[in-house]
Amino acid sequence: MPYTYAFDHKHRRPPMELKDLLGGKGANLAEMTSVLGLPVPPGFTISTDACRAYLEGGWPEGLDAEIARQVRKLEKAMGKRLGDAADPLLVSVRSGAKFSMPGMMDTVLNLGLNDESVKGLADQTSDERFAYDSYRRFISMYGRIVLGLDGKLFDAPFEEAKQRSGVESDAEVGADVLRELAESYKRVVADSTGQPFPQDPADQLRGAIEAVFGSWNGARAVAYRVRERIPHDLGTAVNVQAMVFGNRDDNSGTGVGFTRDPASGAQGEYGDFLVNAQGEDVVAGIRNTLPLSALRDRFPAIFKELMGIFARLEEHYRDMCDTEFTIEQGKLWMLQTRVGKRTGRAALRMAVDMTKQRGWKITREEAVGRVAADHLDQVLHPQFAEKPAQLLTKGLAASPGAAVGKAYFSADDAAAAAEQGEAVILVTSETSPEDVHGMIASQGILTSRGGLVSHAAVVARGWGKPAVVGAEAVRISGRSFTVGGTTVHEGDVISLDGGSGEVALGEVRLTLADPPEEFTTILKWADQIRKGRLAVRANADNGPDAANARQFGAEGIGLCRTEHMFLADDRLPIVRRMILADTPAEEEAALEELRVAQKADFVAILEAMDNLPVTVRLLDPPLHEFLPSTEELELKKATKGLTKQEERLLAAAQSWHEFNPMLGTRGVRLGVIKPGLYAMQVRALMQAAVERLEAGGKPRVEVMIPLTVTRQELGLARGWVADTVAEVVGDLPKRVANKLDVLIGTMVETPRAAVRADEIAEEADFFSFGTNDLTQMTFGFSRDDVEGRMMSAYLEQGLLKRNPFETIDQGGVGQLVADAVEGGRATRPGLKLGVCGEHGGDPESIDFFYRVGLDYVSCSPYRVPIARLAAAQAVIANP
Amino acid sequence: MPYTYAFDHKHRRPPMELKDLLGGKGANLAEMTSVLGLPVPPGFTISTDACRAYLEGGWPEGLDAEIARQVRKLEKAMGKRLGDAADPLLVSVRSGAKFSMPGMMDTVLNLGLNDESVKGLADQTSDERFAYDSYRRFISMYGRIVLGLDGKLFDAPFEEAKQRSGVESDAEVGADVLRELAESYKRVVADSTGQPFPQDPADQLRGAIEAVFGSWNGARAVAYRVRERIPHDLGTAVNVQAMVFGNRDDNSGTGVGFTRDPASGAQGEYGDFLVNAQGEDVVAGIRNTLPLSALRDRFPAIFKELMGIFARLEEHYRDMCDTEFTIEQGKLWMLQTRVGKRTGRAALRMAVDMTKQRGWKITREEAVGRVAADHLDQVLHPQFAEKPAQLLTKGLAASPGAAVGKAYFSADDAAAAAEQGEAVILVTSETSPEDVHGMIASQGILTSRGGLVSHAAVVARGWGKPAVVGAEAVRISGRSFTVGGTTVHEGDVISLDGGSGEVALGEVRLTLADPPEEFTTILKWADQIRKGRLAVRANADNGPDAANARQFGAEGIGLCRTEHMFLADDRLPIVRRMILADTPAEEEAALEELRVAQKADFVAILEAMDNLPVTVRLLDPPLHEFLPSTEELELKKATKGLTKQEERLLAAAQSWHEFNPMLGTRGVRLGVIKPGLYAMQVRALMQAAVERLEAGGKPRVEVMIPLTVTRQELGLARGWVADTVAEVVGDLPKRVANKLDVLIGTMVETPRAAVRADEIAEEADFFSFGTNDLTQMTFGFSRDDVEGRMMSAYLEQGLLKRNPFETIDQGGVGQLVADAVEGGRATRPGLKLGVCGEHGGDPESIDFFYRVGLDYVSCSPYRVPIARLAAAQAVIANP
Repeated sequence: MPYTYAFDHKHRRPPMELKDLLGGKGANLAEMTSVLGLPVPPGFTISTDACRAYLEGGWPEGLDAEIARQVRKLEKAMGKRLGDAADPLLVSVRSGAKFSMPGMMDTVLNLGLNDESVKGLADQTSDERFAYDSYRRFISMYGRIVLGLDGKLFDAPFEEAKQRSGVESDAEVGADVLRELAESYKRVVADSTGQPFPQDPADQLRGAIEAVFGSWNGARAVAYRVRERIPHDLGTAVNVQAMVFGNRDDNSGTGVGFTRDPASGAQGEYGDFLVNAQGEDVVAGIRNTLPLSALRDRFPAIFKELMGIFARLEEHYRDMCDTEFTIEQGKLWMLQTRVGKRTGRAALRMAVDMTKQRGWKITREEAVGRVAADHLDQVLHPQFAEKPAQLLTKGLAASPGAAVGKAYFSADDAAAAAEQGEAVILVTSETSPEDVHGMIASQGILTSRGGLVSHAAVVARGWGKPAVVGAEAVRISGRSFTVGGTTVHEGDVISLDGGSGEVALGEVRLTLADPPEEFTTILKWADQIRKGRLAVRANADNGPDAANARQFGAEGIGLCRTEHMFLADDRLPIVRRMILADTPAEEEAALEELRVAQKADFVAILEAMDNLPVTVRLLDPPLHEFLPSTEELELKKATKGLTKQEERLLAAAQSWHEFNPMLGTRGVRLGVIKPGLYAMQVRALMQAAVERLEAGGKPRVEVMIPLTVTRQELGLARGWVADTVAEVVGDLPKRVANKLDVLIGTMVETPRAAVRADEIAEEADFFSFGTNDLTQMTFGFSRDDVEGRMMSAYLEQGLLKRNPFETIDQGGVGQLVADAVEGGRATRPGLKLGVCGEHGGDPESIDFFYRVGLDYVSCSPYRVPIARLAAAQAVIANP
Repeated sequence: MPYTYAFDHKHRRPPMELKDLLGGKGANLAEMTSVLGLPVPPGFTISTDACRAYLEGGWPEGLDAEIARQVRKLEKAMGKRLGDAADPLLVSVRSGAKFSMPGMMDTVLNLGLNDESVKGLADQTSDERFAYDSYRRFISMYGRIVLGLDGKLFDAPFEEAKQRSGVESDAEVGADVLRELAESYKRVVADSTGQPFPQDPADQLRGAIEAVFGSWNGARAVAYRVRERIPHDLGTAVNVQAMVFGNRDDNSGTGVGFTRDPASGAQGEYGDFLVNAQGEDVVAGIRNTLPLSALRDRFPAIFKELMGIFARLEEHYRDMCDTEFTIEQGKLWMLQTRVGKRTGRAALRMAVDMTKQRGWKITREEAVGRVAADHLDQVLHPQFAEKPAQLLTKGLAASPGAAVGKAYFSADDAAAAAEQGEAVILVTSETSPEDVHGMIASQGILTSRGGLVSHAAVVARGWGKPAVVGAEAVRISGRSFTVGGTTVHEGDVISLDGGSGEVALGEVRLTLADPPEEFTTILKWADQIRKGRLAVRANADNGPDAANARQFGAEGIGLCRTEHMFLADDRLPIVRRMILADTPAEEEAALEELRVAQKADFVAILEAMDNLPVTVRLLDPPLHEFLPSTEELELKKATKGLTKQEERLLAAAQSWHEFNPMLGTRGVRLGVIKPGLYAMQVRALMQAAVERLEAGGKPRVEVMIPLTVTRQELGLARGWVADTVAEVVGDLPKRVANKLDVLIGTMVETPRAAVRADEIAEEADFFSFGTNDLTQMTFGFSRDDVEGRMMSAYLEQGLLKRNPFETIDQGGVGQLVADAVEGGRATRPGLKLGVCGEHGGDPESIDFFYRVGLDYVSCSPYRVPIARLAAAQAVIANP
C-alpha cells in the first residue's frame, strides 16, 4: 500500500468513504477533485498509515521517495518547482485526521519560500511587498507551529518595525521593512533552536510533516480525544497542496461558506469573506469580514459559480456543507469542504427540511440518523452561549444544562437565599439526603467530590437540574472556595455548565432551552422506526418524576428505587426506628408506618404510569446509608458527648458499618436478614395497585429483586413476593384480582448472576441489567473512587478506550450481558429483558443493547428523548 | 420406585454403594445381611426418597401400605406380631442419613410395646421386671425423642420412685414400681401433649418415622450440615429393625467394637462391652464398660465369632470398621457397621499398614485417598483434647491449632507478659501491622472483628499460629472482655482452637502436634502420584517463611506479597514519606530507600527458594493502607490537636480515602498513577537476583502484575518491568545475564480479566488466579463484610451450598476460571497457570483446579502438606 495519494488519484471507492486512510480533509479534497471535478488546487495526501508507522517506528522507509514523486507530479501540474529561484511553487501543509480535532498542528502556508525563491515570487507577482510579507509570515508560522517557538518572539520585532516605520497597521509596512523582518525572524529561529532556518524546501516539508505527525500525541489533542471518545490509535493524515493567494490584489479574496445556516438551519448560503486576504485572516478575526451574500455584488460571476458549487455539494453529500474557498485574481478555488457542524436547532430543522428537498431528498430514517444526542441536549437544556471570560475549573459533567447564580455553601443557606428570590448555586463538598431542600432551591449544584453516581449527580439528573460534581480543584473552606489563585465568597456570582463540566466566575450568557417544532417530528419518526423493536422507559421514584417521564415519551418505568422513598425527611426517623428496634414488635410497628407512606408513593406512580409497566426495585442500599456516619457521631462523642438516642444510633452505625459497602449487606441480602422489610414493600405496592384498580386504573406492576447471585436466593425472595401478592389479592373479588398484572424478576448486576443466568431465569419473569454495578464488579472499579484521577489517567494513556461507566464496555461487561441474555432465554424463551443502568441513556450503549436483544432501555426522564432517538438509530444501523 | 427395602432385598448393585438411597446405616445393614450373610436382626429401610417426598409434600401416598407390607414380612420372619398381647415383636427405629449426622433424631427402642403387649413380653421372657423396665424406657424415649418432651419430666417420677422404694441404683427398682412408673409416664405424656400415649404400634411407628424425617430440618442438624458442608437436600433414611436384647440376662450383653484402634491405628480389636445391658447404656457411660478383649474370657465362642466377623468386614470393606453388636442369651447379633472414624495419627498409620496387609491389601493410591485434610491438620497442629468445660463462644476458625494462655488486651501488654515467661493469648478487636510484635509473642490470637482475610487471620495462618477471629459475641472493654454473662479479666487463662473457632474459659488439655513417620510416607506417595500433573507452591513474603514453606514441601512461591515488606516498623515511615512527597526528588529518595530494603528481602527469599520459581506480586493494596485512619486523626484533631506532620498525614489520608477500597486505586492502578513504584520494586528484585547469581545461586523470578483489567494495562506494566529488567541485566556480562530466568505475568482476579483472558494472554507469560478477589467481585461479596451474619444466614437457608471463600464456587467463579483458562491457552498454548487465592489450600477446590487444567496451586506454608495430598487425590479421582 502506498503512503501517499494525489487528490486526483482514482480510488476504487468514493474518497469520502476513505476517511480512515485519508483523514476527513484529504478525503473531501479527493472527492471534490476526482469525483466532482471542482476547482481545487492540486496536491496530495500522506495517509494515516504513514502517521501510525511513524509513531511506532520513526520515519517510514520509502516515504521520502514517495513524497518526492508526488512533489514532482505537483510541480509538473503547476508548471513550477519548489524553491525555484525564478518561479517557485509554494504549498500549504495541513493536518487532517478522520475526525476534526483541535489541539493538533493546523496549517503551515507558503512552504517552499527561502532566500532565493522569495525573489522569484517577487518577480513573478511583480509585488516585492507581497513576496516578503509571505516569506516573513512563513518563517514565523513555521517557527511557531513546526519548531514550537513562542509566537511573541516574532510579534516583538514586528511591533518594533512598525514603530520604527511610524505606521500603525500591518498593511502599511513596506517591502524593505518586511525583508528586514524576514532576516530578523531567521535570526530568532537560529538563536532559539541552535539551527538555521531550513532553506531546502524538502527539509521544510519533512519538518512540517513530522510536526503534524507528532502533534497527534500532543497533550491537548490527547485530552480532546479522551473527551470526544476518539480512539488514540487512528493517527492523522497530512495534506500538501499548491498555494493559491487570496491576498494578491483586490480581485482576490478568501472566505468560508456554509450551504445553509448552521445556527438556525435556515436555507440559503451563509458565511464570511474578506477581499485581498489569506485564509488565516478570516479565521483570526483581525479584519471585519463581509457576509457571504456581499459576494453577489462584488464578484457576481464568482458568486454564481460558488452557489452552483454549493448546490452540487449539497446534492452530492446530501447534507449541509462547510467550505473554504479562495479567489485568486478573479479565479475561484475550493480549498476544503466537509459536512458542516451545526447547532441542535439547526440539526433538527435541516433533518426535517431535507426530507422535503426539491431535486434530492433524504429518507425519514436518514433524517433521524442526522440528529445526535448532543443536538437534543442543546435544545432541551440551556447552555453557555459564550466562552466564559473567567473559567475557574472543569469538573465532571454530571447533569446537563447551564445555570447562573450566587454561590452558597450549605443547603440551609442556599434555601434561605432562594427564599429571598435570589438565583442560587449550591457549592458543597458532597451532598446527602439531608441537603435535598437546598438542592431543590438551587439553579445548579457544584460539588468538589464524588463521581457521576454520587448523590448530587443522581438526584440532579433525575430533576434535570444542572450539576458539576467532583471538581477536585475546588477547595471549600467555610463560606468561600478557592480555585487556583481565585477565591469565591458567599454571594459571588458563578456560572456552571453541567453538560461540559465548566465552572466560571461571573455571569455567562446562556442559550435558551426551546425545542423547535422539528423536535417533535423527529422523535415521532424515531418512535415509528423503533416501535416493537426497542422500548424506552424511565427511571423515576415518585409521581411527579413519573409524570414528567411520561411527558418525555417514556413507555413505562424501568427502575423505581424505593430507597429514595426512605430518605425523605419525614421517613428517615421511621427507618431508623426500624433499624434500632429491640423487639420484633417495634420493628413491625416501624415497618407498618413505612408501609402506609410507601403505599401513597406507589399510588401516585402507578397513576402517572397508568397502563404502562412499572418496575419497582425492593430496597437495595446497605442499612447504614440510613444512619448517621460513625465518624460524625464519634467526633461528637469525643467533643460534646452524645444523647442516649445518639448512643444507640452510634452502636447501630458501628454494627452495620462496612469496609466495602458496595459489596456488603445490601439488595436481596437485606431481605434475607430482614424478611419483613420486603414483605412490607410488596404489601404497600400491591395495596396501591388494588387502589388504582378500584379507581378504574390499569396498574402494571413488575417487582424487582436487586443483587441476586444464586437461583436459590431469587427463589426465596420470589416466594416472599408471591406470598404477599397472594395475601393481598386473596381478599379481592376474583373479577378484580384477575385484572392484576404482576411480574416478578431480578436485577442482573453481579457477574455471578450473569454467568448463572440460565439457572436464575428459572425464578424470573424478567431480567433488568444493572450495568452500573455490573461494570463496577466486572472491572473492580468503585465508581466513586476511580472516576477522578484514575479514570483520567486510564483514558489519557489509552488503557481504556472509553469510560466504561458512560458507554458499556462491550468486550468485558457487554460479553457478560450477552451471555446472560443467551443463558436466560435458553431457560425461558419469553424472558423480558431490559437495562436500567446509566448506560440505558447512552446512544452507543443503546445500539449494543439492541444488538444483543434487549426489549427495552430505561434512563433518567430528561434522557428519554435521547434514548428514543438512539433506539431508532440502533434499529436503522442493525437492519 | 419403592420407598422401602428389606435388609435382605437383592439390589442390583452392592448396597454399600446405595447410601444416597438407603442412608449409611441402611446400606451397611443390607450389605451385612444380603452380601456377607452376617447375623443381623431382620428389618427394613425407608429410603431417603420417602423423606424428601415427606418434606416437600407431607406423608407420601402409598408409604403406609408399603410399611404395612414390610412389617408383615418382618413379623413372618420373626414369628411374632407387633403389639401381640401374647408374644409381641418389638422393633427399633433409627435415623440413617448418607453421612453420619448428630443433631438428628437418633433411636427409639422397644417400639411395639403397649399396655397389652408388655404383658406378653413378661410372659415370654418370664421376666416381668424386664418387660416393664422396657415399657417405661420406651415411653420416656418416645416422649423425649418423638414427642419432644423434656427428659426431666420422666426423671423426676423415677427419682421419686427410687426414694419411695428406698433404693439407690436403677437395677434395684422392682417390677411393681416399674409398672407404676409406666403408668405415671403415660400420664406425663397425656398431660404434656393433650393426647394419650399411642397404644397402636402402627401409630407408634408412624410417629417415630415422622419424627426422624422432621429432625432432618432441626436447628442442630442444619447447623451441623452447614459446618460439615453436607447438602440440605439429601434427606435421611429410617431403619426399622427387630429388637434383640442384650439386657435379658448375664448371658447377654452389648458392645461397640472397632476392627483396629481408631486412636492410634494399631492393629487388633478395640472397643467396649457391657454384660446384661442395652446399647444405650454403653453409649451413655452410666456403667463402667469392659474392654472388648475381656470377651475372650467371658464369651470365648462369641469372641471367636466376632473376630471372624471383624476379619471378614475388614477384608470386605478393605478398611477399618466400627460395629455395634448385641449378645442375646448367648447368640451374637450385628446391629450396625460402618467404615470407622479415626484420628489423624490412626488414619496415616492404617493407610500405610493396609498397603502391606496379609490376605488383602490396598494400593498406594488408595492409601493416599484414605487420608483427609483434617487428618493432616490434626497431626500438624495441637487441638483441644477434651470438650471444654466452659465454652465461651465460637468465632471464625482462622488459623488451625489450639493454644492456652493468659488473656492480654494490647500488643504491648502481651509482649511484656511473654517477656516475663508467660503463655499469652492476645485479645483485641482487630489487629494492624503495628501489633505484630504482640502477635509474635502470643500463643494464639482472638479478635472480635474481621473475617478470614483480616490482618490477624492472614498473618496467623502465615505463621501457623492459632487464631480465632470475628468472635462477635466478645465485647472488649479496656482490660477485660465479656461474653454473655461471663467477664474475662487480664491475666485470666483462656483456651482457643483455631481449627474449630472455639474459645473456652480456663485451661483445656491439648493434643500434641507430632506427625508420625507415616506422614512422610503418605506425602512421598502423594508426590509421586501428582508429579508432573499439579505442583504445589506456597504463599510466603520473607526468607524465613519461604524456608519454612520449602520444609513443608513447597515447590516454589506462588505469591510473594510485597506490601508486607512495606508494613514493617522500619519501612512504614519511608512509605509514608513516599506518599507525602511534595517533589519528584523527595519521592525518588524515598523509593530509593525502599529499594535497598526490599532488595535484602528478595535476596533472602530467592536464597531460600533457590532453583524454584518465585512469583513476586508488585504492590497491590491501596495507598491509604499505609496511612493512619482519617477517623483516628480527625478525632485527635478535634480533641488534642495535630502536629504539622499529622496534619500532612491527615490531608494525604483524606486525599487517598476510598469508599470501597477493594474496588479502588490499587494493584496495577497504583503503578499507572505512580510508575516509579513498580520500577523500584522490579529493580530491587532483579538486583537481588543478580546478587544470587553471583553467589552461585539459581534465582527463578516471576514478576506478577496485580488486578489487571485490560490488555493495554498489562502491556504498559509489562513494558515497565521489561525495561527495568533490561536496565539491570544490561550491566551484566552476557554469560551471567543468560542465566537469568524472568517471566512476566498477571493475576487474574477481576471478572473482566477472566472474560478477556484471550487478549490479556497476549501480554502474559503466566496467569495466577486470585480467587479471593475474583470471588468477591463475582458475587459482590466483600469478605470482611459478609462473612459474619450474612454468610451464616445464607448457608443455613441453603442459599449457598458452600462458603465460596472456603471452596470455590464452581458454577460461577469457577466458570470464569475455566473460561479464562480456555481463553488464555487459546492465545498462548504454553501459558503457565496457577492459583494463589486461599482456595489453593482447599482440597475440593484443588480437585477443581486440576480438572480445569492449572499447573500449580499455591497456599500458606502450613497448608502445603494438605495441598500435596489433595493434589494427589485430585489426580487419582480424575484419571
